Amino acid sequence: MPTEVKGLNEECGVFGIWGAANAATLTYFGLHALQHRGQEGAGITANDAGNLQSERGLGLLADVFRDPRRLARLTGTAAVGHVRYATAGNHGLENIQPLAFNFSDAQFALAHNGNLTNARTLRRDLEAAGAIFHASSDSEILMHLIRRSAAATLTEQVQEALRQVHGGFAYLLLTNDRLYAALDPNGLRPLVIGQLPTGGYVVCSETCALDAVGAEFLRDVQPGELVMINDQGLHISRYTTHTQLAICAMEFIYFARPDSNIYGVNIHSARKQMGRRLAEEQPVAADIVVGVPNSSLSAASGYAEASGLPYEMGLIKNQYSARTFIQPTQALREQGVRMKLSAVKGVVAGKRVVLIDDSIVRGTTSRRIVKLLKDAGAAAVHLRIASPPLRYPCFYGIDIQSTKELIAAQQTVAEMRQTLGADSLAFLSERGVIDAVGLQTTAPYGGLCMAYFNGDYPTPLYDYQAEYDAEVQVHTQK
Amino acid sequence: MPTEVKGLNEECGVFGIWGAANAATLTYFGLHALQHRGQEGAGITANDAGNLQSERGLGLLADVFRDPRRLARLTGTAAVGHVRYATAGNHGLENIQPLAFNFSDAQFALAHNGNLTNARTLRRDLEAAGAIFHASSDSEILMHLIRRSAAATLTEQVQEALRQVHGGFAYLLLTNDRLYAALDPNGLRPLVIGQLPTGGYVVCSETCALDAVGAEFLRDVQPGELVMINDQGLHISRYTTHTQLAICAMEFIYFARPDSNIYGVNIHSARKQMGRRLAEEQPVAADIVVGVPNSSLSAASGYAEASGLPYEMGLIKNQYSARTFIQPTQALREQGVRMKLSAVKGVVAGKRVVLIDDSIVRGTTSRRIVKLLKDAGAAAVHLRIASPPLRYPCFYGIDIQSTKELIAAQQTVAEMRQTLGADSLAFLSERGVIDAVGLQTTAPYGGLCMAYFNGDYPTPLYDYQAEYDAEVQVHTQK
Amino acid sequence: MPTEVKGLNEECGVFGIWGAANAATLTYFGLHALQHRGQEGAGITANDAGNLQSERGLGLLADVFRDPRRLARLTGTAAVGHVRYATAGNHGLENIQPLAFNFSDAQFALAHNGNLTNARTLRRDLEAAGAIFHASSDSEILMHLIRRSAAATLTEQVQEALRQVHGGFAYLLLTNDRLYAALDPNGLRPLVIGQLPTGGYVVCSETCALDAVGAEFLRDVQPGELVMINDQGLHISRYTTHTQLAICAMEFIYFARPDSNIYGVNIHSARKQMGRRLAEEQPVAADIVVGVPNSSLSAASGYAEASGLPYEMGLIKNQYSARTFIQPTQALREQGVRMKLSAVKGVVAGKRVVLIDDSIVRGTTSRRIVKLLKDAGAAAVHLRIASPPLRYPCFYGIDIQSTKELIAAQQTVAEMRQTLGADSLAFLSERGVIDAVGLQTTAPYGGLCMAYFNGDYPTPLYDYQAEYDAEVQVHTQK
Amino acid sequence: MPTEVKGLNEECGVFGIWGAANAATLTYFGLHALQHRGQEGAGITANDAGNLQSERGLGLLADVFRDPRRLARLTGTAAVGHVRYATAGNHGLENIQPLAFNFSDAQFALAHNGNLTNARTLRRDLEAAGAIFHASSDSEILMHLIRRSAAATLTEQVQEALRQVHGGFAYLLLTNDRLYAALDPNGLRPLVIGQLPTGGYVVCSETCALDAVGAEFLRDVQPGELVMINDQGLHISRYTTHTQLAICAMEFIYFARPDSNIYGVNIHSARKQMGRRLAEEQPVAADIVVGVPNSSLSAASGYAEASGLPYEMGLIKNQYSARTFIQPTQALREQGVRMKLSAVKGVVAGKRVVLIDDSIVRGTTSRRIVKLLKDAGAAAVHLRIASPPLRYPCFYGIDIQSTKELIAAQQTVAEMRQTLGADSLAFLSERGVIDAVGLQTTAPYGGLCMAYFNGDYPTPLYDYQAEYDAEVQVHTQK
Repeated sequence: MPTEVKGLNEECGVFGIWGAANAATLTYFGLHALQHRGQEGAGITANDAGNLQSERGLGLLADVFRDPRRLARLTGTAAVGHVRYATAGNHGLENIQPLAFNFSDAQFALAHNGNLTNARTLRRDLEAAGAIFHASSDSEILMHLIRRSAAATLTEQVQEALRQVHGGFAYLLLTNDRLYAALDPNGLRPLVIGQLPTGGYVVCSETCALDAVGAEFLRDVQPGELVMINDQGLHISRYTTHTQLAICAMEFIYFARPDSNIYGVNIHSARKQMGRRLAEEQPVAADIVVGVPNSSLSAASGYAEASGLPYEMGLIKNQYSARTFIQPTQALREQGVRMKLSAVKGVVAGKRVVLIDDSIVRGTTSRRIVKLLKDAGAAAVHLRIASPPLRYPCFYGIDIQSTKELIAAQQTVAEMRQTLGADSLAFLSERGVIDAVGLQTTAPYGGLCMAYFNGDYPTPLYDYQAEYDAEVQVHTQK
Repeated sequence: MPTEVKGLNEECGVFGIWGAANAATLTYFGLHALQHRGQEGAGITANDAGNLQSERGLGLLADVFRDPRRLARLTGTAAVGHVRYATAGNHGLENIQPLAFNFSDAQFALAHNGNLTNARTLRRDLEAAGAIFHASSDSEILMHLIRRSAAATLTEQVQEALRQVHGGFAYLLLTNDRLYAALDPNGLRPLVIGQLPTGGYVVCSETCALDAVGAEFLRDVQPGELVMINDQGLHISRYTTHTQLAICAMEFIYFARPDSNIYGVNIHSARKQMGRRLAEEQPVAADIVVGVPNSSLSAASGYAEASGLPYEMGLIKNQYSARTFIQPTQALREQGVRMKLSAVKGVVAGKRVVLIDDSIVRGTTSRRIVKLLKDAGAAAVHLRIASPPLRYPCFYGIDIQSTKELIAAQQTVAEMRQTLGADSLAFLSERGVIDAVGLQTTAPYGGLCMAYFNGDYPTPLYDYQAEYDAEVQVHTQK
Repeated sequence: MPTEVKGLNEECGVFGIWGAANAATLTYFGLHALQHRGQEGAGITANDAGNLQSERGLGLLADVFRDPRRLARLTGTAAVGHVRYATAGNHGLENIQPLAFNFSDAQFALAHNGNLTNARTLRRDLEAAGAIFHASSDSEILMHLIRRSAAATLTEQVQEALRQVHGGFAYLLLTNDRLYAALDPNGLRPLVIGQLPTGGYVVCSETCALDAVGAEFLRDVQPGELVMINDQGLHISRYTTHTQLAICAMEFIYFARPDSNIYGVNIHSARKQMGRRLAEEQPVAADIVVGVPNSSLSAASGYAEASGLPYEMGLIKNQYSARTFIQPTQALREQGVRMKLSAVKGVVAGKRVVLIDDSIVRGTTSRRIVKLLKDAGAAAVHLRIASPPLRYPCFYGIDIQSTKELIAAQQTVAEMRQTLGADSLAFLSERGVIDAVGLQTTAPYGGLCMAYFNGDYPTPLYDYQAEYDAEVQVHTQK
Repeated sequence: MPTEVKGLNEECGVFGIWGAANAATLTYFGLHALQHRGQEGAGITANDAGNLQSERGLGLLADVFRDPRRLARLTGTAAVGHVRYATAGNHGLENIQPLAFNFSDAQFALAHNGNLTNARTLRRDLEAAGAIFHASSDSEILMHLIRRSAAATLTEQVQEALRQVHGGFAYLLLTNDRLYAALDPNGLRPLVIGQLPTGGYVVCSETCALDAVGAEFLRDVQPGELVMINDQGLHISRYTTHTQLAICAMEFIYFARPDSNIYGVNIHSARKQMGRRLAEEQPVAADIVVGVPNSSLSAASGYAEASGLPYEMGLIKNQYSARTFIQPTQALREQGVRMKLSAVKGVVAGKRVVLIDDSIVRGTTSRRIVKLLKDAGAAAVHLRIASPPLRYPCFYGIDIQSTKELIAAQQTVAEMRQTLGADSLAFLSERGVIDAVGLQTTAPYGGLCMAYFNGDYPTPLYDYQAEYDAEVQVHTQK
């Protein structure tokens, strides 16, 4: 579950529902449970007897729907919703989803989590054929492909379109009479199906959103599947058979909520197991174990148990909004971290601390936390990271598209230790992550995408190949 | 200048500027002067060295740009802006303009005032060819046509697209390196060109917006013209020669600001002349002349002068926002009018009042105002309307698309008098409007579109023909 | 009715109601009609079965009550409300009225329009006796005096307190079981009583607020009266017999709404009469008469009628909020006026204009308007002011406490004409004002306070005497 | 650290600073660290060269200061701030602190944490002597007493006033030239002094606020002390010698932040020790230990360590604002809890859970959490509370003034177990709390106020004696 202090961002969460009274309100509750997947925009489109209405805005879900009339307008028994993280340069309203489309004969609302690797090529081809684009994001492309398909039925049109897009994607598409859900051939992003006690269906990014609306988990959407839900029920087809599981390892390490399950594996338990394994792989003589709240607490408790060291609350996260509107002077800006995190002097003073963090991106925050602990009197800070070093960009929907900002792509572990000011530094092995997650699969890397760690991408990179090559060249020279 | 109490709405105002420091801020000032043309949404797109950035939102311009950072983000030396009135059913953010389009090789921002009569046909044809639509309004159509044109240059593509759209339109199209402005072949909507003292150009809906930014009036855009402004200057071409002036009479009667000129005619002066002519055509024995503020004050002063009766301030409009967030009880709802308008008892008590209004739409407001005056002690209220009865729908950009809501389409003048509770009721003749405006032209109806009064539309109705026929049939049977 | 462009501000409007369902909502409507008397803060206190609840805030009434729950909380059948203009240095929330007081045995809510001349002395004496003060304004003083009175009944306590405060005041005091209203011995501020059709009573600053809630005017509160309203009805007593009518002339000239009556005189009619008289006293050869909107339109129409010149709408006021949140560059700041007012070129070009304004304070706005007309092509601008020159400070509740900012206190009429850039300049005589208002009274100056014009204050100045002497000395030396 | 789901509220947090550039901004940071002590109102008063300016408002600190100009206005080198919890019936703006007082010769700003037991008597006496009260809270009383004191110096006046108020109080009083801080004779509320690296002084409710501004802890303010800070430094006096330490036990159990120290005892460590002791006193055969986030995590980890059971994250708290503006239907209202807390099925399913909570107030939340865990598949839920049953009201500043809402005052432990649906229920002993805190003192109850548990109040109850007797009578009869 992302802390706000780390520069690592999932790009989206999606939630769709069909066949439920108060569909938009349930979508609100579901999105609230998915808010950790995106905090910079939110929207809901509802279907009332075939007519689609949307409300969208910038900011947190609760900000967008502060005026209760906005949700009240979204009547009907089906809906899709979206929370989004906005990457630099496309923070505009036109990128807030669900995207709405209005045709003479149909309406569509599209919600997308992920990133396409052949978007630029598709876009150029579509433009050459007269297509127009409003947003700067990838998400309109699928709609163009669907509408240009010559296939006989809408389902076939969607399948044909899905075969043309590559990369990581979980799509929800609401129409006048049905809800589609589709997952990429590697299952890079999570997507699950649940059922309400009253019979309606839910498709969403994480099981925590099923719990939030009282829906029972049915199954994970499988790579290459197209789900269609209408008043007749749930229909699952495959748009491709060229599939191989490679779900984003960072979902287990950092993004997903601890109470969610992915392919039957509970996130908290997987993280705790990573912590245990880390203790075995990278032990250290110390007095207490402290986790960076909130995302690393599971791993920290695992480390504590396996090492036999006491688990202590040596860092406190302020639970109140750190969104401050104050422009601090340069002298006061350093206070920023302290407004979010504080060290518990009474706990850490004089102690050798094993500090557990789930991952390191830029290193800025880690350096500040190490300093915070030392200022609070820690005798030593041994930094243990419950994942391997992040060295390669992600092209499937996580906001690390350049390695320039990744400290582990720029420095050796020894250099990093020095930069961060820690007394020692060690990472969990790739094998450790794979074993801790423990998916039942014969797919490479235990069914995980480990590309950020080892550069082995589960798909061709298409439009990104050139910039990846440039990155790696720099990387190798170093 | 529309009062808020009348159900008659212009759909838009547009403002574009090229070659000026602070282009977005000047656009803000220009749109502020055009706010009377649309109060439900506003947006600005600015061009900074070829890069387009947009800010848009629901509500008044000042509400949309309440956070000063929104305007500050819009750097650059060119911009287009738009204020809009949202018709029922399309109040969503996706309809707020300028519409932004992002292509691999280009960006566009489109602002549109008007309404197309062949939009449905064009849309259906485009959709059949794979085009996708976000908004429910007409405005995306032009972009599709431009991008699908096979013409060699962008200017020729725009011209080809303009020849395909019919109805009333004033378009502004900002690109990475130029600003286009186009007017329909009948000049149904106003559009003027001005020049800043520093040399930059402005194209906008009314001359009052030129004054607001200190630009000097150059000329009205003529029917069928395409204006192109870039760093080399101003270039005017014609995309069609099949033109005939038929500018919306309601611009003179009601919409445009009194300080604007259209084709050299000052709006206040035209209205005052309508009032004089009304006094000649429809005299009545009375004590004082009172106009409905603010839109009818010019006509009322003309009536007073021509009749020799004293012009009095018998009605006061509250200058403070009547946008109340209170949900009054049914008993209190009637207060609504009194919050906006009040009668001056000391002026009207015991007097025979000639009440001048510029037009009557539903009649609801007129009935309330007559009652307000009688409750204040008026001995008689003789209602004189400074335009002919509104009997036919408008398909060119004014929100009267059905005659069901037009009292004059449902009742005779005698019936209306009774409905409104006035002691007498009379209207200005069509001839009176034409003479009062007095354009120098040989076009029919003195260059005005008088279709709301007489059903004689200056263009074929295309997609609207069927519903017009149905309207008229009902109309004739009655 | 104040335009926003003039630096002359009334300090308050008050509204009280007793014995009406929805008392707070009616108070909201009443205050909305009084909004012109103060735009920087608003509040309402309601009495529900003896229990007082308040809501207050900075800004316009509609802003303070934007959240409908704020008004919904104010249940009960009695209420007092207040709109305030905040003078520099006391813009804080603690000065927003009604002031609420909570005692073991009673609650009070106090709303005050006016200014005391012996406030500093009273405050010093009270403090010496242990009194504590929250706000920096005068209004708490009365509450202290009431609570310290040894008189037997609350009414006698209030009367005793009223005899100790001097200056201009209209007080409303809501308690658990009654509503008091009191006016100073000179009746410097307006205060009227009305009755609702359902029997409840209203006391408020102007009759326009009676109209806004459908109350019938009963009578003006007289100088030196204390009104008490409770469930048994209306009770009027006198707390002093040393009274002499001297109502603020500026209420007739500028502050009050045109549809209000004061002592039976309609404000619009009085202003029109001032305009007529001005035409007689100060004629000029010209082509048209133009008034500064909105406050000078009545006087301008009177001038036009008396002079036989046509009355024209040569200036337009933008009806949309000029509250801009933009920080314009120095170059753009001059635009500010144009955002509020614009000249109608088509009307004024080539014409000799008689420009009517109700008064001149600093002269800044007048200079800009003259320039605006000349820029629009006026052949001449003859400025005629429908009141005498403002030369002396007001100590009774209007924000002109120093003559340093009054152009007429610093310059001769000839100098002013040059400063303002007008072709001629002339003012209405004091006699002209008095005759135009025409109150039936034997009091000096026809029952008006003319002190801003002639320095003849109707009361001793007490605490202000010293600073007045200093002002006048400077004044005389010049 | 209070979760939002429990009905137990501290009434305030205070922060004062003297001798620091950016005093108001540092106060903002300090209050942000104290936000858990009150979320319904916040304010800051700053002293710029002897002149006091205030900003106050309803809601969270970040909401009150959303407009950055509000903080920017608070210039100067000294300030006091306050965050408040508003009890029902006094949520108005007049109760938001610091309270500001303006006198002819002085200004004061008063911030108060606590509750007086003789407020009603003092108020009645003061009112009889003519004192007026704005707010309904106790806090104005001290100001009256100071101003009515005949003592020679301000310090003596303050001391005399402090000797007259009884109960629990920590006061900060900012004047034009100094900052006072005072603590009640039992030290019921926490108050600490720190020093900035630049030399300025800070006095605030908890040490976490010292850390937030980089101040070094100097000492706890002792019972009966009056601290005075001015440009000459820090001066500590005693206003009474009748003191005996009895600090609120609930500060250790629930209110204070885990990273704060009180009298040298770290809060997290004390809570962890309570958890250890609870495991010894109330062991149970189970599989895992789960704490209610966030306030019970320390105690839960202590219980886990002492019991040897694994500590698991079985409950997740949604970190995003649960302040929803939606009015859910009755059917959806139950969702409310799930929006804040969710059970981790993968962790608790099939497990016997020891659920640790710090305290039980009404029991409503506990019942829901037990159900949440059982719905998630917990085989058993053994509820262990890390404090004794709450049976008596608090009169010193915590919002439990009636026992009617305290489940432990109404039911036996066996009844409570049944009401809450737990498989077993047990509480920590009073001795356990006292030992876990372990203050070095000979005062009764180890220097803690344990009255909520045993009714033994450290002070006379004065005005509350009668209602306490009534409560207890009911209590005893049951």
